[in-house]
Parts: sequence; structure tokens; C-alpha cells
Amino acid sequence: MERSCLAVILAAGESTRMKSSMSKVLHPVANRPMIAHVMDVVARTGISSVALIVGRNADEVAKAAGIDGITVEPYLQKERLGTGNAVLAAREAIGRGYDDILVAYGDVPLITEGPLRAAREGLAAGNDVVVIGFHTDRPTGYGRLLVENGELVAIREEKDASEAERAVTWCNSGLMAINGRKALDLLGRIGNDNAKGEFYLTDVVEIARSLGGRTNAVDAPEDELTGCNNRAELAVIERMWQERRRHAMMLAGVSMIAPETVFLSHDTTIAQDVVIEPNVVFGPGVTVETGAVIHAFSHLEGADVKAGATVGPFARLRPGTDLAEGAKVGNFCEVKNAEIGAGAKVNHLTYIGDAFIGAGSNIGAGTITCNYDGVNKHITRIGENSFIGSNSALVAPVSIGDGAYVASGSVITEDVPADALALGRARQETKLERAKIIRERALAFKAAKKKA
Amino acid sequence: MERSCLAVILAAGESTRMKSSMSKVLHPVANRPMIAHVMDVVARTGISSVALIVGRNADEVAKAAGIDGITVEPYLQKERLGTGNAVLAAREAIGRGYDDILVAYGDVPLITEGPLRAAREGLAAGNDVVVIGFHTDRPTGYGRLLVENGELVAIREEKDASEAERAVTWCNSGLMAINGRKALDLLGRIGNDNAKGEFYLTDVVEIARSLGGRTNAVDAPEDELTGCNNRAELAVIERMWQERRRHAMMLAGVSMIAPETVFLSHDTTIAQDVVIEPNVVFGPGVTVETGAVIHAFSHLEGADVKAGATVGPFARLRPGTDLAEGAKVGNFCEVKNAEIGAGAKVNHLTYIGDAFIGAGSNIGAGTITCNYDGVNKHITRIGENSFIGSNSALVAPVSIGDGAYVASGSVITEDVPADALALGRARQETKLERAKIIRERALAFKAAKKKA
Amino acid sequence: MERSCLAVILAAGESTRMKSSMSKVLHPVANRPMIAHVMDVVARTGISSVALIVGRNADEVAKAAGIDGITVEPYLQKERLGTGNAVLAAREAIGRGYDDILVAYGDVPLITEGPLRAAREGLAAGNDVVVIGFHTDRPTGYGRLLVENGELVAIREEKDASEAERAVTWCNSGLMAINGRKALDLLGRIGNDNAKGEFYLTDVVEIARSLGGRTNAVDAPEDELTGCNNRAELAVIERMWQERRRHAMMLAGVSMIAPETVFLSHDTTIAQDVVIEPNVVFGPGVTVETGAVIHAFSHLEGADVKAGATVGPFARLRPGTDLAEGAKVGNFCEVKNAEIGAGAKVNHLTYIGDAFIGAGSNIGAGTITCNYDGVNKHITRIGENSFIGSNSALVAPVSIGDGAYVASGSVITEDVPADALALGRARQETKLERAKIIRERALAFKAAKKKA
Repeated sequence: MERSCLAVILAAGESTRMKSSMSKVLHPVANRPMIAHVMDVVARTGISSVALIVGRNADEVAKAAGIDGITVEPYLQKERLGTGNAVLAAREAIGRGYDDILVAYGDVPLITEGPLRAAREGLAAGNDVVVIGFHTDRPTGYGRLLVENGELVAIREEKDASEAERAVTWCNSGLMAINGRKALDLLGRIGNDNAKGEFYLTDVVEIARSLGGRTNAVDAPEDELTGCNNRAELAVIERMWQERRRHAMMLAGVSMIAPETVFLSHDTTIAQDVVIEPNVVFGPGVTVETGAVIHAFSHLEGADVKAGATVGPFARLRPGTDLAEGAKVGNFCEVKNAEIGAGAKVNHLTYIGDAFIGAGSNIGAGTITCNYDGVNKHITRIGENSFIGSNSALVAPVSIGDGAYVASGSVITEDVPADALALGRARQETKLERAKIIRERALAFKAAKKKA
Repeated sequence: MERSCLAVILAAGESTRMKSSMSKVLHPVANRPMIAHVMDVVARTGISSVALIVGRNADEVAKAAGIDGITVEPYLQKERLGTGNAVLAAREAIGRGYDDILVAYGDVPLITEGPLRAAREGLAAGNDVVVIGFHTDRPTGYGRLLVENGELVAIREEKDASEAERAVTWCNSGLMAINGRKALDLLGRIGNDNAKGEFYLTDVVEIARSLGGRTNAVDAPEDELTGCNNRAELAVIERMWQERRRHAMMLAGVSMIAPETVFLSHDTTIAQDVVIEPNVVFGPGVTVETGAVIHAFSHLEGADVKAGATVGPFARLRPGTDLAEGAKVGNFCEVKNAEIGAGAKVNHLTYIGDAFIGAGSNIGAGTITCNYDGVNKHITRIGENSFIGSNSALVAPVSIGDGAYVASGSVITEDVPADALALGRARQETKLERAKIIRERALAFKAAKKKA
Repeated sequence: MERSCLAVILAAGESTRMKSSMSKVLHPVANRPMIAHVMDVVARTGISSVALIVGRNADEVAKAAGIDGITVEPYLQKERLGTGNAVLAAREAIGRGYDDILVAYGDVPLITEGPLRAAREGLAAGNDVVVIGFHTDRPTGYGRLLVENGELVAIREEKDASEAERAVTWCNSGLMAINGRKALDLLGRIGNDNAKGEFYLTDVVEIARSLGGRTNAVDAPEDELTGCNNRAELAVIERMWQERRRHAMMLAGVSMIAPETVFLSHDTTIAQDVVIEPNVVFGPGVTVETGAVIHAFSHLEGADVKAGATVGPFARLRPGTDLAEGAKVGNFCEVKNAEIGAGAKVNHLTYIGDAFIGAGSNIGAGTITCNYDGVNKHITRIGENSFIGSNSALVAPVSIGDGAYVASGSVITEDVPADALALGRARQETKLERAKIIRERALAFKAAKKKA
């Protein structure tokens, strides 16, 4: 698209109904601030200049909106005098003379590229204002889009609508594109002679027409225009986002037994022929390659899962986890900042942190890498085809050589050479009949306690 | 409300379709017997006297119904002769002469205060019977409420209804309020001259009118009148209860990423600005303070989570857990009857039972408090800013002082003074080339087994 | 049913939209290949001979279709020339002269016995073709079933339908029964003189009527005819299957707090008065007896849970687990190939593999059976009423006698006689003020690292 464009994003709402200590547009959807989703679709629409109208938490909002490929200028909306007034907070930017001005909202994050492009194309076709509308079964409360001969002739507010007009189900979303050369003039003419004394952006349609301009409307699916005014609506937006993304992944060849129980992040990448069982949560930064299986009750964040690897059930992969081809991390295992080599197995009740595990090694149940001394984190290195016996503690920094064997229940504090056996456990003593004595003592203690 | 009222709660149903060894009304909704939910709404409606009509499991039902602020008198329904007969099992109580008699059902637990109050207000306005109705898209099978000039003139059963009457979508729920001074007379006139030979409570409307009294109906949302006849319907009631409570919490400022995966108990209390991730189960007795985060796959019961504390993912808090400000309990950790001090961390694969952990202490991965000797439970005390190395076993009763350090893999059986280091582990021995021998032996064993 | 029948199951579809490296009909529903579900309903309909039309992955498909009570003959469809051509791949089998030919689809796995029997009964009543239809709100795209005087007179394709015909909402599913004595003749007359040059099975209706035969249609619920063309549809089929089975279980007396979070396998067996909490996954081969409770976040596979046993929360039972009456497996515990005796408890952070645990024994938190030496698996035997202290490692093969006691933190490598006490741990040493020194060293290390 050759035309220049400024997106004006309204993100200054008070959002008291969120009952939140932070600005509404900072609340996350798919583990990313709502405002960043809006910036992202703006970028994908081919727009690189954004005027961000901010209020509360202005710095955090501007920071959250800063995504690659977009230049964001924040403008503070000082008074709450309506949407028309809010857009004019960016008067300076608008005045630079873009071809198109696109108005969108920080709390309407599900809008996609299609309707935004269509609105801009409407400007290119000679309209001065192009409103984005939506069809709905429950139009009550929305302004109705009145169209005649292919032009938008008015946006009729509920209270002013005739019975016939109320039957119209095409409604105003508030998003619109405005001729950038005329925008300051049109916006400046919006008045506040109404019950609430506010400046309504919607009035630009009538103003443009009264000046002899053409106006039109384009359509967007109702779902894409879902707004967020409280946390129940935030949850609805999250659900819609998740449904959209899961569906796209399934069509691309990912199996999900129960997609409604799989929670993706904005940047989750999953390849074809991966199976995701029920109840899996993906935090940010996860990539899963083909043929991997993510079993039920798994939680992944910042992890690379290579082809054919297996995760879970009940596994937790934390940031910095790298599972090589065919590696396995099983139940009640936590892995953090660690490489698990090809075909290596970490199958049961294990904590692996700050470690390298060589290909083909087997880490026994209950193994703990003791990576933290209370102040510093240290590294554990385990070679290839080594065997760490169950319930061992590997006190980092420590290295275990290729093919080495650590006996069950050992505390390993010194390096173990390749093919060596390391033990660090006491010899067993067995005291006959002693269990009876222990039981008797315990029962006596119990009886004494009861008396007391 | 000045008028006196007796609630008659029908809870004697056979409920054979529940296929259960216990009475239907004892089945829980939100971890509380269904009957207690009904008692609760009765109490909130300002009623303190209840006649409980019981059948099977009479004692357990009466006990489950005993909530604060309500006096419950159980009456045994000896024969199953219909709802009119069931209410008269409480003849003695009704005969005391209350202003209002309110009839509700032990297996209709979602009814709220509004319709119950409205029914009583109908009596105060001079009606002798006020029926609670509901609008529905599927009226088939229900008695239709026929209203003329603002009065309920009849409840028409499906089989007796004209085509016009069948088109009525306002239906009888069975709940009703009856003039308490006339109740015994009205109820006594109900006959059983019908196909099933049962006494139908519904007949009081016609009887009251035939005696010159006025009758009316008030409305309740259909959902509130959902009844429970089998365990699939029980699950529907549970879902509706959960949806209602989750929604109220979100509007009050609790974030739920996926509310449909969060399961609350009847008494769960969650403050504003708490974030609940997907898949969290709250058993009874949980309080969560502001700013806390409950990560995915967490299970809490009888726990106090203070401001800014973090739970999970994969954490289990059992009764008696008290997480102080900013404390953390992480993955695959179980805490029971224990105080975790401010900022203390119990992050990985740990069992803390019957313990006190001081502020700022760090409990390493795989730590176990050995609180049980097979007969008695004992206490573990850990001071402030202490460090418990990974894979340690603390054999209670035992105390670890402030700033003390327990080496990884230790078994601690004696108290550790403040700032002391305690070790209880064997020295490591390393035997070169021995791993090869072990492997060879194991392979030989395998080969021998195969032959055998 | 006395009549002989051959089922012809079409399972040769290319299924490119599945984006899968395996044939569509091998994708599982409820942990069983889709094709096996179809075979199962065929068997329950009383049919024992199946001609399976296969394409890609022919051997695997034929193998997956091989269920008890059915003889499967695979026929390779060499060219993709339409459904009429596909059925004729089984020309040899059809030519044997069955009374009935029933045509079904490998990717329509939810069909039940009722409509299949009804179609065959239609043949017995003298029809030559009986089509299975379904009523739908969205008929667009489907062939409409045109019925006159109780006969199916035509299947009208969308593009050929009049406006009145398009308003018909009874549609063709593609499943049908054909007179087995006339089938080869009827099928052989299908032509391909159409836009796509394909042979449409549907044409047999018109052909049969042109030859003077009678044709009819029977009805099936729309849900049962859901087909699978991509993985999103596969997930829909899984959901429908799960909903159907959960509902049946609840009606039979199983309590599910949140049935939508319980995932069953095709062969899951759960008795009356079992309670299933939210978020439970049943892999294949699980039986749960009456009065057992499966707590939230549990994962069971190949396990027998006897009466009154308790599982979870956060428990994993793997194949070969046998929980006796009243046994308990608690949080973060994994059990594999093991018998847990009556009333025995495995409550916290434990791995039990290849083991026998006697009645009444208590396995402490963090216990690990070290069953694997890197090559072989070995057995652990624990007697009755024994007590295994927390954080112990039992190195198999090893036996612990009745009433024996293993001290916390022990590594047990030798058998422990009945009533004996076994210890295998180092004595504690306590070094005063040493923790301070450790902290100072760690802080110095940190400072040095920062500089470097």
C-alpha cells in the first residue's frame, strides 16, 4: 500500500470496572498485554506510525506498545471529554499530513487485518470517512449504520432511531478510517452540544457529509470487535483468542485431544504431527517440533522441544530448557536452563536446573541437581550414556563423565570420571526386632500426650 | 421483614435415578451438601425457622441442613403420597401460626433470595398463594401459569391444556408461598382423586380461589429452578453454580485466564488483583489476598494465601497452610499444617508437613519433613533466612536455627543452632572403570534371564 | 437377525486436510483408532463380515480394524473414482451373495447401532436401497432426501434442487444398505457422466427405482454422522464421544464434578458411587470399583482401582497398577507395575515401580524404588504393616519384611527381616558458625564473577 497512514490508538480509558491497579490495556491476553495485540495487527496491516493516546500508567502502556516495526508516539489525554477529544490529543501527529488516519482501540484486541485494510481501501476509493461495522443479533444500545445507494448516510444512535432504524442489525464499532488531509478540519468541527457534553468521534460522518464528502462502512465479524470493560469480558477475549489460535493449529496438522483445555501463548509455535493431550499450558517462548508428544498436565515456558521428544504427563519445562530429538521428561519433573541430549531420559520426580545432560543418559527417579548455594547458581555436566541412580543429589559445580554410574541415594560433590562408579551413601545397618521397640515407644508417647 | 415465616423444605425424595447410596440432597455442590445451599438462601431471605421434610438418611440430612442462624425441625415423611402430603408432614410446625409458609425443595439449590422475597411480598399484598414461575423455551411437561388481570387464575397441567394454553411459556416451578394462617385449611383440602392417587401441592391455587382468596405468581430465572434427578443434572447444577460465582469474582477484580477451568468451593474468598491461571481447584476453606498469583495446576484446601504470595504451578496446599506475604510454594510441592514465612521459598518437589518456616528461608528441591513416625506427628521448626540443601530429610521433632545451613542430601535428626552448618551424608567414593563392570554384569544377567 | 450381511467400510480417503503422516482412520478417538470404533458398531449391529476398502497405510488400517468377532477382508482402492467405484473394490466379497450390503465410512465413527439396524430392517421389508438420513438446521451442500408416500423417491443434489427442495432439511449421510442379491448389478450401472467424472454411490437410489425396486430412508441423529476431514473435526468427534460416554456414566451413578474435564478411554470402566473430581485423564485399561475417589489432576492407565481406594490429587497410575481396597496413592506419586495392598498408603512424592506392597504399610514421602540398573528391572517386596521412612531409596531386588521399619533417608540394598529396623544413612555432624563462612564465600564468589 503506497498511501501513508497514522494509526491513532485510544488507550486512555479509566477502566474502573476492571477493578485493577493497572491500566486495562496492560492486562494480558495469551500472555501479552492487550495493547501489544492491537499494535501487532496495526503492523500487519502495513502501518508503521502510531499515535498512542494514553492516560493512567502512561509509561508502562507506551512501553508495552513498543513492538518491532512500529514507531509509537504517546500522547496524554488530559481530560475525559469523549472519543473525538481523545483522538485530537494526537493533533500534532495528525497535522503532519498522512494520507490515512486509522482509529482503533487498545481494548479491542481481536480485530484482524482484513477490516483495517478494507477501511483504508475505502479512503483510497475516495471516501472521507470509512466506519467499521458489524452485524449482530443484539443491536440494542449500538449506533446503527444507515446505508443508502452504497454510501453510509448516517450513524443513528439508539435513542434517536425510528422503529425501522432500530430493526437494522449493522452497527457501529467505533473503529474508522479518516481522510488524513481533512482529518484535523473534520475532527475540529465535532461539537459537544449533547446530554453528556462529550465530543463524539462518530459525528465526523455527518460532518464529512455536510461538507460534501463521501462516507462508507465496511464489515468486520462481531467477535473481532469484542471489547473489554471488566475481567469477565477479558476472559471472553482470552477464550476467543485461544479458540482462534487452536483452530488454526489443528488445521495445520497439530492434534489436540481436547483443544478447549490447551492454553497457548501469543508466540507458541507447534509443528505438524505433534500431539497435545488434554490440559497443557504453554507460557511464552515455546517451540515444539514435529512428532513430539506433549502429555496431559504439562506446563512449558521458554522451551525448545525437538522432533520426537516426549513431555509429561505432569512435566514442567521452564525457560532455557532444550529437549533434543527423542529426549523424554516425565512425571513430576522440572527442568530449567538445561539441555537434555538426544534420547536422554528424565522420567520421574526430578529437578534438573542449570545442567547439560548428554545423549542417551538416564537420570533416575528423585534426582536433584543442587544448583544453588543460597547465593550463586552452579552448573552440572553429565556426559553421554551415563546412569544417575535414583534419589541422588548432584552438588554443582560438578561433572559426571560419559558412561559413568552414580549409585542410588548418593550425594555427589566431586567430579566423576568417564566409566567410573561413584557412591556417596552410608552402609546399611539392620537391627533385628528394633521396629517393635520403636512402635512401642511411639505408642507410649501418644498415650502420654493424650493424658497431658 | 416483620412477618413471621416458616420454610418447609422438601428433602425426602427417593432419588433412585441418582443411583446413589446416599440421599440426593446430601450430594455436594461446590463441596457443600445441596441441602445446605437451600438452607443458606432461606437464611439470607430472612427466614430462621425451617421444617425439613426428610425420608432416607434422615439424620444425615438434618445434620447437613444445620447451618448458622436457622432452626431446623426434621419431619419424617412416612408415605410417598405426593407433594401436598409431604408438606403436611410438618403439620405441627405449620399449625403454630406463622404469617407465611414458604415451600422450597432440597434438590433445587440454585434459587436465589430475590424470588423467595418476592413470593413473600405477594402474601403481604393480600394473596393467599403466590407461586414462583419461570419462563422457558421448552415448556412441554410443565404446568402453565394462567394469569388474568394480574392474578394467577390457574396452573394448567400439560394434559389438560388447550392449544392456546400450551403456547404459554410461563411455567410452575413448584416453589410457592402460602398464607400461614390459612395453610392448614388449604393443604387439608387437597384431594387425591387423580390418575396417580397423589396429593398435589399445586392444587392449593384452585382451592384458595374457590374459597374466595387471591393468588398470584412471581418470576424467577429458569436457571435458578434447575432441579436434580440424576448425576448428569447434578453436574449441570455444579456448572451453573461455578459460572455464577466465577463471574461475580471476575467482576470484583479477580483475573481468571480460563474461568471454566477454575473450580471454587462454597466458601472460597479471593481478593481483587489476584490472578488465577487455568486449572486451579479450590477445596473448602481457602482465602487468597490481593496480588497473589495462583499458577496453573494448583490445588488448595484450608489454606490462607497472603498478599503477593505465589502458588504453583503444580502445588498442593492442604489444610492448615498459611503462606505469608510474598512466600512461594512451587511445583510438585505439598504443604500441610504449616506456616511459610514472608518471602520464604519452597519451590521444588518438597513435602512440608507440621512445620514452621521462618521468613526469608530457602527450602531446597526434594526436601522432606519427616513428620510421622508411624504413630505420631511431630513438628519441624526452621528459623529465618536459613538454607536447607536439596534432597534433605528433616526428621521431626527437630529445629533449625536462624541463618543455619543444611548440606544437600543430609538426614537431620538433631537440632541445628543458628548459623551452624549441619551435614548428615556419607563421603563420596569413586571407583574407576567400575561402571563398565556393572554394565557387563547387568547385561549378563539379562542374557541369563532370557535363556531361562 | 437371520439375514446375512456384509459391511463395506470405506477407509481409503486421502485425507490431505488432516496434514498427517498417517491415514485419517488411524487417528485415535478415546485412545482407539477411529476405524476400530466403526468396526465395533458394526459388530454390535450383528455383522461379522467386513470388506474394508483401503488406500494409504493399508496394512496398518487393516490391522487396526481387526477387532474380536469380525472377519476383515481388506480391498485396495487403486484409483480415486468416487464412492461408487470404491465400494466396487470389494466386488469379490459382494459377489458371494449376502442378503444385505451395508455401506459405512471409516471416518464417521460416532454412528450407533440403531440406524444401522433400521437400514437393514428396511431391506428386510422389501426395499432395494435404504439410505441413512439426518435432519439438520444447515442443509446447504448436502443432498436432500425427497420422500413421497413413504418412499424415498430421489436424493437431490444442492445444485439440481428447486427452491422448495432446498427447503428440505432431511439430508443424505452417504451411509446406506443395499439388497445384497442385486448389489453388483445396481453398483455396476452407476455411471460417471458428470462434471467431475466420478462414480457416485448415491446414484443407486435412482437406478434401483428405474428397475422397479423400492427405496427408502431411515433417520439418524445429526451428531452421529459427524465426519472427520481435518484435526479440528477430529477434536469435535472426540468431544462428542466423550460427552456421550460421560453422560452415560453419570446416569449410571458415577459422580463427576466437572464432566467436561474428565477424559475417558474407549474401555474405561467405572462403578456406581465413584467420585471423579475435575481434571482426570483415563488412558486405556482402567477399572474403578465402587466407592473409590479419583481426586483432581490424576492420570490413570492400565490400572485397577479397587473399592474405596483413593487416587490423587496429582497421582499417576501407570500400567500394571493394582490398588487394593482402601489403598491410597497421593500427590506427586507414580506407580507402575505394582500391587498396593489393602489400606496401604503411598501418599507423597514417591515412585513405586515393579513392587509388591503389603496391606497396611505406610510408604513415607519421597520414597523411591530403584527398580532399574540401567539394563534390567528388579522387584521390590514390602511386607504388611511395614513403615518406610521418608526419602528412602529401596535398591531392588530387595525385600522388606512384615512390620519392618526403614529409617528416613536410608538407602536399602539388603533384605530387611520382619520387625527389624534398617538404617543406611550417615550420622549428622554440626559445625557451629560454619553457615556464615559458607555465605561469605558464596558472596565473594559472586562478587568475583561480577568483576570477571
